[in-house]
Amino acid sequence: MLIEPGKLLAQIDSPKDLRAMNKSQLFELCSDLRQFIIDNVSIYGGHFGASLGVVELTVAMHYVFNTPYDRVVWDVGHQAYGHKILTGRKEQFHTNRVYQGLSGFPRRAESEYDAFGVGHSSTSISAALGMAISSKLKNEDRQHIAVIGDGAMTAGLAFEGMNHAGVSDSNLLIVLNDNCMSIDPNVGALKDYLTDITTSHIYNKVKDDVWHLLGKISKIGPTAQQLVSRVEHMMKSALLSHSNLFESLNLRYFGPVDGHDVNHLVDIMEDMKNIPGPKLLHCVTVKGKGFAPAEKDQTKWHAPGKFDKITGEIKKKTFDAPQAPKYQVVFGETLVELAEKNEKIVGITPAMPSGSSMNIMMNKIPERAFDVGIAEQHAVTLSAGMAAEGMIPFCNIYSSFMQRAYDQVIHDVCIQNLPVNFCLDRAGFAGADGATHHGAYDLAYMRCIPNIIIASPMNEAELRNLMFTAQLPRNEGAFCIRYPRGQGIMPDWRTSMEEVGIGKGQKIQDGEEVAILTIGHIGNYAVEACEILAKEGVHPAHYDMRFVKPLDEELLHEVFSKFDKVITVEDGCIMGGFGSAVLEFMADHGYQAKVERLGIPDSVIEQGEQIELQKEAGFDPESIAKAVTQLIGETVV
Amino acid sequence: MLIEPGKLLAQIDSPKDLRAMNKSQLFELCSDLRQFIIDNVSIYGGHFGASLGVVELTVAMHYVFNTPYDRVVWDVGHQAYGHKILTGRKEQFHTNRVYQGLSGFPRRAESEYDAFGVGHSSTSISAALGMAISSKLKNEDRQHIAVIGDGAMTAGLAFEGMNHAGVSDSNLLIVLNDNCMSIDPNVGALKDYLTDITTSHIYNKVKDDVWHLLGKISKIGPTAQQLVSRVEHMMKSALLSHSNLFESLNLRYFGPVDGHDVNHLVDIMEDMKNIPGPKLLHCVTVKGKGFAPAEKDQTKWHAPGKFDKITGEIKKKTFDAPQAPKYQVVFGETLVELAEKNEKIVGITPAMPSGSSMNIMMNKIPERAFDVGIAEQHAVTLSAGMAAEGMIPFCNIYSSFMQRAYDQVIHDVCIQNLPVNFCLDRAGFAGADGATHHGAYDLAYMRCIPNIIIASPMNEAELRNLMFTAQLPRNEGAFCIRYPRGQGIMPDWRTSMEEVGIGKGQKIQDGEEVAILTIGHIGNYAVEACEILAKEGVHPAHYDMRFVKPLDEELLHEVFSKFDKVITVEDGCIMGGFGSAVLEFMADHGYQAKVERLGIPDSVIEQGEQIELQKEAGFDPESIAKAVTQLIGETVV
Repeated sequence: MLIEPGKLLAQIDSPKDLRAMNKSQLFELCSDLRQFIIDNVSIYGGHFGASLGVVELTVAMHYVFNTPYDRVVWDVGHQAYGHKILTGRKEQFHTNRVYQGLSGFPRRAESEYDAFGVGHSSTSISAALGMAISSKLKNEDRQHIAVIGDGAMTAGLAFEGMNHAGVSDSNLLIVLNDNCMSIDPNVGALKDYLTDITTSHIYNKVKDDVWHLLGKISKIGPTAQQLVSRVEHMMKSALLSHSNLFESLNLRYFGPVDGHDVNHLVDIMEDMKNIPGPKLLHCVTVKGKGFAPAEKDQTKWHAPGKFDKITGEIKKKTFDAPQAPKYQVVFGETLVELAEKNEKIVGITPAMPSGSSMNIMMNKIPERAFDVGIAEQHAVTLSAGMAAEGMIPFCNIYSSFMQRAYDQVIHDVCIQNLPVNFCLDRAGFAGADGATHHGAYDLAYMRCIPNIIIASPMNEAELRNLMFTAQLPRNEGAFCIRYPRGQGIMPDWRTSMEEVGIGKGQKIQDGEEVAILTIGHIGNYAVEACEILAKEGVHPAHYDMRFVKPLDEELLHEVFSKFDKVITVEDGCIMGGFGSAVLEFMADHGYQAKVERLGIPDSVIEQGEQIELQKEAGFDPESIAKAVTQLIGETVV
Repeated sequence: MLIEPGKLLAQIDSPKDLRAMNKSQLFELCSDLRQFIIDNVSIYGGHFGASLGVVELTVAMHYVFNTPYDRVVWDVGHQAYGHKILTGRKEQFHTNRVYQGLSGFPRRAESEYDAFGVGHSSTSISAALGMAISSKLKNEDRQHIAVIGDGAMTAGLAFEGMNHAGVSDSNLLIVLNDNCMSIDPNVGALKDYLTDITTSHIYNKVKDDVWHLLGKISKIGPTAQQLVSRVEHMMKSALLSHSNLFESLNLRYFGPVDGHDVNHLVDIMEDMKNIPGPKLLHCVTVKGKGFAPAEKDQTKWHAPGKFDKITGEIKKKTFDAPQAPKYQVVFGETLVELAEKNEKIVGITPAMPSGSSMNIMMNKIPERAFDVGIAEQHAVTLSAGMAAEGMIPFCNIYSSFMQRAYDQVIHDVCIQNLPVNFCLDRAGFAGADGATHHGAYDLAYMRCIPNIIIASPMNEAELRNLMFTAQLPRNEGAFCIRYPRGQGIMPDWRTSMEEVGIGKGQKIQDGEEVAILTIGHIGNYAVEACEILAKEGVHPAHYDMRFVKPLDEELLHEVFSKFDKVITVEDGCIMGGFGSAVLEFMADHGYQAKVERLGIPDSVIEQGEQIELQKEAGFDPESIAKAVTQLIGETVV
């Protein structure tokens, strides 16, 4: 079902059409655009609140700036639905986040209007600055606009970008979209600071008022005039030149302005076009603007799934049988269960309390659970500091976001051999969020580091047991537990917990001719593959290795003594990952066998349902079964 | 030769002895400590200017705070020589940075006074905050001090830490050691800002003066009083609560103070002990303080090597024959050579202009060479932005520091398939800088990423050819060139440059029984090994693979068709590295062979001369030769 756009939106195939409109029409166009987003997301799902919050900003930017010649760089990018709709993708928009459809984020390959691809936060200032410097070197007169949320501003990369931008004379406009939210409410000193600026009438009017007042004082008499002269000087140097965090970094600061007043935004941006050098426009917006339930519960409506656009009722899947829980829920509940008995346990999340379920501990044991904002690097080094003092940190970071804290894992945790526990959520294919969010590389980039244990549970009970094991007293070494986004397999998941032997895997089934070695949840696909094969009379063995590091060498000796045909399966990159670890074992111990490695190939895989992507990559149950049959047919030299 | 400490320093075996001294003795003690550092470094080498600059800070901190119960966390740590000398390591200090001696950086395993190990910059705030939060949870009344330079403040991690610290009620003191320098002079808006604070008399005195003046104005008359009341309110809210970047982040700001006035520092720190919550003390110091030549040329004297402490003459090695240049110099000179012909080339370094030799381009083509400060993340995303606009960035980052920008390599460069050139300097063992600085992991963590070419030159001519090839027009894909710290092998290195086939290796010598496959400079060790073996009548083949990705499959087919015994050698971690890539090729193509992988083992290797560490790891020329002999003796099943 294609959504019908409103009358004005229907006329817009590109920003050129927008720019041909009369300014007086923009208010109605915003209304059309907002409705089109609501209509689409209510039926097809996707990110919601963020794009509603920037409707006016989006329209104003494309109205004022000459896109795509002028470059608009969106930070994170889940707020760019309006941008996509205005830039020629209105008719395809129903394929948003769908396999082989539009990406849910800006993507250079998708449109010339997507100046820089994105998905992770806080890259926009650096990228736009790079573009602005390039334009200057090429003597081009482009405008460069980075649109960044206040949440994304807390990540160090944004600060690094501002520190450089402030001393460049590049034509860069940073639009700070201040809505006090990431997915969850923002935290940290910067947020308080922005709120102070925004809510303080004194502060807002201080520049005008000071001059006005000083004028009056100076009329009182000659004694006063001397004093005024000194006050004025002080005010100028202290208040005006350093009145503001951004101006401290030599960015000219404008605002705060109402980010929902499209005409005012157009006027301001027109003015700012002519101001050279790096500058920042502070816009205050409301996440979910224009859809009352979304304004009210912004976390819930960040990406609500499908919903009834009239009643605001979010459509939940209904099931006949009891469902297995998400690994996320098991993590969150289990952490509290453990922390209630072990007072050394602390929980750390960088801005993903609801996504990771760390919010369960934040509600129940708030003094020991920390949301540190979008700041993965800090989350890891903070955890290292805590471990150095004898605490037992569980630092939960999405696999693809852990890339942001790689040096901290090596330098602050593993080189020091500190007992920090990492829970890598969203390992493997993330699904609809696409390439930037797939946790594809963690097994490869983690296992090359010394002093780290790497495990992955095949089901909910194993996740609980691994977490139980990770919080037992140990003096050294990181412990990394990775698990995928989504459901496990055990509706009755509240098992009693027991210690897992470090580096101990398990045989799932005995078999003949071929051994399948799996790691983590994906082992259940091998179970399914074995069921498919059993019907054809084929009975491979199946081992769940459970640990990528250390490997279960005893089990591997068994495997390579019995089998000369082996298949490894992982929900991660095959280059350098679990399968390669098995090859290393084989080489180091002089075994000869034909080993087929299944996993994520060495290419960028876009969005889709997890199972669609796994099929594309060749490790869904049917593909595993097929690989077994093929391997049986091959001759080993 | 052991250095004799001065009279007062001789009495100090631990900070307890220091704290027993009279405050009036501290000035002389500082003098002793400074002289002891000068005496030692002049003979044994090491970092110099940084430790001289914090002599007074170091003495004051250990005098005021109850170390090791109170935690002092040094940022970067090369300035901690005084700290080491005062905390029981005076007699071992001549082994500083030597194989199996003291580490050149704080290290937890070395002393209970080293609260947190370090080497990379900007970790101290996060780590100390983690400790402070832990103390609070454990109801301990410790003090926590992070000592961080203004250079380290520019890295995003420091900002992330402050953003969290500002909303915590932890007992954290950040000592900002502001000397305007990293190894090279600092850059960026923050530096300008700190200089402004420090040099502005108006600003320095404004807090006192404002109240004084307002008092006077209020005496003038009733009309004035109303106005004053409003001015006062504005000043309070605008000037005092947000007058300062740090106070914007809710850190109480004190300073700037003279960081060389030890008695004043003691007084201030005593006062600050009793102020709860997060706070920052801004100390202005001079890098190299007390040694005139070092104060004058701070970059040169960052780590000058051995020198004459009277004349200030730096002792240079003298050679009879012409020497091969450092790879660093070849990089720097070649980049300029290329950039002079190709105006699209830009150079980017995060705070390592002299270390990487990017300063050559910064001097010759300043408009296209950028030092972005300690900000590896930004360096990479900036480069991505430039590549998106058609420029050809050469982004030079030390291998171990590239860990800081891992997500940016994946998310901003490779997922977008942008043609950014990375030059990874200090790949392999870094030498005396030790574990934190070894470029051990890059081959493993880079090769699992799609859309990247990874190469390593065996000599200077190859580095030039690879750089030449990397700047030729191509529309996609990152190109990563890694090379070690130090000299190559070609005194006549200014070869004419030619294109290298992507993924093309070369046969160095034909041979029998065993094939040695090497990557990069370490290939010269295999050449030496072959010379050793030739004397024993053993003649292995030797292939320089040159590319880790893509591998030269044609060459590998040749190798595995001819040989069933293969040795891989790399100056990088054997877990997941080049050798594993060879195993993957073998498995994927059904070859069976006995493969022995030489490289950095899966453990933390501390400091030493590069050759000492290579020997320890088992891939110096003798070890390679031995591995060949052993492998020849083995039977392949």
